[in-house]
Amino acid sequence: MARQRIITLTTDFGWQEGYVASMKGVILSARPDAQLIDVTHEIPPGDVLAGGFALAQVFDYFPAETVHLVVVDPGVGGERRILAAQYDGRRVVCPDNGLVTLLERGHTLEAIASVRNADYFLSDPVGTTFAGRDIMAPVAAALAGGTALAKLGPVPETYIQLELPEPTWAEPVLAGQVIHVDRFGNCISNIAAETLARHLPKLAEIVVSAGGQEIGPLRAAYTHVEKHRPVTLLNSLDRLEVAVNLGSAAETLGLSVGSQITARYRS
Amino acid sequence: MARQRIITLTTDFGWQEGYVASMKGVILSARPDAQLIDVTHEIPPGDVLAGGFALAQVFDYFPAETVHLVVVDPGVGGERRILAAQYDGRRVVCPDNGLVTLLERGHTLEAIASVRNADYFLSDPVGTTFAGRDIMAPVAAALAGGTALAKLGPVPETYIQLELPEPTWAEPVLAGQVIHVDRFGNCISNIAAETLARHLPKLAEIVVSAGGQEIGPLRAAYTHVEKHRPVTLLNSLDRLEVAVNLGSAAETLGLSVGSQITARYRS
Amino acid sequence: MARQRIITLTTDFGWQEGYVASMKGVILSARPDAQLIDVTHEIPPGDVLAGGFALAQVFDYFPAETVHLVVVDPGVGGERRILAAQYDGRRVVCPDNGLVTLLERGHTLEAIASVRNADYFLSDPVGTTFAGRDIMAPVAAALAGGTALAKLGPVPETYIQLELPEPTWAEPVLAGQVIHVDRFGNCISNIAAETLARHLPKLAEIVVSAGGQEIGPLRAAYTHVEKHRPVTLLNSLDRLEVAVNLGSAAETLGLSVGSQITARYRS
Repeated sequence: MARQRIITLTTDFGWQEGYVASMKGVILSARPDAQLIDVTHEIPPGDVLAGGFALAQVFDYFPAETVHLVVVDPGVGGERRILAAQYDGRRVVCPDNGLVTLLERGHTLEAIASVRNADYFLSDPVGTTFAGRDIMAPVAAALAGGTALAKLGPVPETYIQLELPEPTWAEPVLAGQVIHVDRFGNCISNIAAETLARHLPKLAEIVVSAGGQEIGPLRAAYTHVEKHRPVTLLNSLDRLEVAVNLGSAAETLGLSVGSQITARYRS
Repeated sequence: MARQRIITLTTDFGWQEGYVASMKGVILSARPDAQLIDVTHEIPPGDVLAGGFALAQVFDYFPAETVHLVVVDPGVGGERRILAAQYDGRRVVCPDNGLVTLLERGHTLEAIASVRNADYFLSDPVGTTFAGRDIMAPVAAALAGGTALAKLGPVPETYIQLELPEPTWAEPVLAGQVIHVDRFGNCISNIAAETLARHLPKLAEIVVSAGGQEIGPLRAAYTHVEKHRPVTLLNSLDRLEVAVNLGSAAETLGLSVGSQITARYRS
Repeated sequence: MARQRIITLTTDFGWQEGYVASMKGVILSARPDAQLIDVTHEIPPGDVLAGGFALAQVFDYFPAETVHLVVVDPGVGGERRILAAQYDGRRVVCPDNGLVTLLERGHTLEAIASVRNADYFLSDPVGTTFAGRDIMAPVAAALAGGTALAKLGPVPETYIQLELPEPTWAEPVLAGQVIHVDRFGNCISNIAAETLARHLPKLAEIVVSAGGQEIGPLRAAYTHVEKHRPVTLLNSLDRLEVAVNLGSAAETLGLSVGSQITARYRS
């Protein structure tokens, strides 16, 4: 089979405009054989955490050599740098604003560059306000074509990571927070499966609480409770999640980003 | 030209999250040459009829050997089976919950399997709640690569079909219902062109009524009435439809899924 | 690398239905090697200016030989013609309703046809109301495969162009209008960079006003003003734009399509 040249795109541009497609045109002008995959363009404008979450959600499911292009860039046109990095064989191109924060947990950084080499930028940019199209898209195309990260610019001394809340362990309670609410109203916490298992290894004896009520023990699937009842489980991202079977946990339980979720042994 | 490996995707996941893209990553990891086509990811959550409608809407327009992957799965994680089936040379992979109901009308079932062979599932699933990514996506990739349906599992004794309302003929009136309202407010009925022609073969003499008013005779196009006027026609799906030229029939006429649409000869 | 067969799609069909995918199925049935790129399907229903704006926004960024298929067609099924045209090596297929108006400015028309040759239409159309699927999609596929425009039909004597407001110069003021508000609330005017430079060549001395207030001098980027402050610049489309850094100019300044934007020298 032909060498893969997959490039994924994650932005906050929405689908209503031609912004995403003009980036794709730039990529295809450079690499007509690129396979372009949209992750989402519905990241809330400027929401770096949500952008990083989508990136982390899909990262491991794409083949090695995939290039992930993430343009959530509230500092566009300002002094912020643009990064190109490689984790576990997959590349990411994004503004240096914390988008890689979640990737840093559980993945191995293999190379990183502060993108400065204008040879890889769009040769004749129409304007000055669209770094996604004029810088990041052609850089992603170059990486997909085999350009080494080191050619794009120097290794940065530092790069930005978001300060995310960490779960806290105060025996006998592990306390975390909702870090993402998905479109179904499922509430995904900052408690990773391995963190849960480290503090509370007898998973079958755990009870989870959220929104001022006890949700119950860990289940294997949403449908293991009655319809419209709250349920908690280790979800498809290997994180503790609180949901409502065929309903919205965010609405039913009054949860949002930042709401507390706790786990302890059944007393 | 190269052998086609088209896989279409229809889900209720929305575009805001990375769920769809993680399915695509799984498919591309197995078959980097797959051509992935989004039908829609805006099926109302859990709406099996709407999912089946979108599937039927596009099915005949794709080449033979296309694999249609449909993940509208309110019973995810429960006991429901997963089906793989072939109709008229095209394959479909979906939960066994009635998504194939509309395909069953007018298409020939050539093969069907209850998907059980875990050899075709994602080898190292991260979680247990995402059958679309961990089971249905890799199965669709296998089918696109030429795997026979029989390898996926046994032929099921039965499978689920939705009980759809059928048009009723009580001379001189053929009475049907709206089964789908599209984004333009066009109201699509359960009256197929051939059903209409069987009971009321003189098409030029038919008048259609809906929402308590007479819409008029069958037209060849929306624009064959004045702007903002109701119109009825046999639509691009070969079904009786009530619309408003440059407007919404659902709003103007107060129609929704289940509303009655009748046809009879002009008196 | 293989010959490119890129076809972009711009419609007002939305993503909720299977309309777009059935067009894609028709294209892929004819040309399995087509690379299909969505520009947007969220054009407001029937909004020809918005459709033409999206087309112009992406046109120059795709490689030569790209075929742009634009289906915003409020006159569907009526007497309006369908056009196929070539500007600067790229082709467009669309209804003759003014969608090419913005392309006409700054691009060279190289060939044009009024599409009539039914040999290129879908051979066995299911219905009569979907010209996008039954006529325009197969015509786009034929063009992508190398069919000459002249085979599709004769050169039309005229074709429709929208009457767009032009900026007016009444010394010392250049007055234009907002012609598009994007999803971020950025307000894009009908004042092209070259028009501005012709009347007010000392760009550094210009001040721009909109919504009853002075916005200020031209900036190089949104971030060159404080957060939530109004800003004006020559945007990524080379047009004068009024925006709010990390906010919505449409909301903050009360601007919408048709609102006046003026430029003059600082007094």
